[in-house]
Amino acid sequence: MQKTSITIQTNQHMHLVDITSKVQNLVTQAGISEGICYLFNPHTTAGLTINEGADPDVRTDIIKGFKEFVPIDYPFKHMEGNSPSHIMASLMGASLTLLITETKLQLGTWQAIYFCEFDGPRTRSVQFRIVASQN
Amino acid sequence: MQKTSITIQTNQHMHLVDITSKVQNLVTQAGISEGICYLFNPHTTAGLTINEGADPDVRTDIIKGFKEFVPIDYPFKHMEGNSPSHIMASLMGASLTLLITETKLQLGTWQAIYFCEFDGPRTRSVQFRIVASQN
Amino acid sequence: MQKTSITIQTNQHMHLVDITSKVQNLVTQAGISEGICYLFNPHTTAGLTINEGADPDVRTDIIKGFKEFVPIDYPFKHMEGNSPSHIMASLMGASLTLLITETKLQLGTWQAIYFCEFDGPRTRSVQFRIVASQN
Repeated sequence: MQKTSITIQTNQHMHLVDITSKVQNLVTQAGISEGICYLFNPHTTAGLTINEGADPDVRTDIIKGFKEFVPIDYPFKHMEGNSPSHIMASLMGASLTLLITETKLQLGTWQAIYFCEFDGPRTRSVQFRIVASQN
Repeated sequence: MQKTSITIQTNQHMHLVDITSKVQNLVTQAGISEGICYLFNPHTTAGLTINEGADPDVRTDIIKGFKEFVPIDYPFKHMEGNSPSHIMASLMGASLTLLITETKLQLGTWQAIYFCEFDGPRTRSVQFRIVASQN
Repeated sequence: MQKTSITIQTNQHMHLVDITSKVQNLVTQAGISEGICYLFNPHTTAGLTINEGADPDVRTDIIKGFKEFVPIDYPFKHMEGNSPSHIMASLMGASLTLLITETKLQLGTWQAIYFCEFDGPRTRSVQFRIVASQN
């Protein structure tokens, strides 16, 4: 299947969820050796990023850092009260483009793919698409 | 036409302009059922992002939030005086990658595509490219 | 060659390195007239961005601005002490998608492609991939 989606259950208000193995499993199932993998997050208070996967403190620190500089207590207009979450979503971005080589995500040694929850806990999804290309 | 550009007239110094319908119209005209749509912003004091389209307060709050944490009054070196605009451009990013399914942008319910003006008002453009892929 | 990598030697703790001509050279060598060029940074304390290439003060100001708002002295948990570098990496993003027209990067007049070093000096690499598409 070259087109599907990933379901993610987040369990905190703001945190980063490692989805690397879920994405790699879909790449393996697609059986495409060389190509481009696209991930798209359809939510407006969540994002996608790539960062260190080895030390879990890094993903915690990224959230802490964001909370330090994105104005959490600013009198924003949006009535739902989650404008800081929308701002963080745009800082991370809604999509990722990944290179596939020999049916594997071409990530760096320390890299992991993170779903960034900024207004959870919620059940979220990410769209997955893979397109073959010539070597 | 699989390759064209969108013209955008911005009318404030900093604001987000919803270009979703312009992009969807070009996708419809291209007549490509399944594929990837690329948007590229060629300006260095503007960006592209995806965020909530329902409540117009969200796009206003994103600009307000950015002005709160990007140092506006810092003594930057760049003589034109618009370094904060360049910083915001890099925070948003210069391009977007969108998935196309059944000739439609595969956006989430609340998502809109925004051109982010950080040094207007100006006449701006965004490059549009669509590439078909197999289902 | 449609798939290769670029080596970058950075020489400061944090700075932006212009890699535009290196990328254009690879596009020229690939000899692909119309297509999409993907750059992927496999490092977790570095990123990629597009911004002004004309005035060198802009790239310096971007680093200065980041240092002003990303909390440098916050008591982060990650023992290596480079959490601010990881945060900056996610703010910039790990990849860039560039449009190719007539064997040329379709950049705006003032745009340059930057490798963003946030924890140097180090020897870094960026993966390059180009895929042809129909005009």
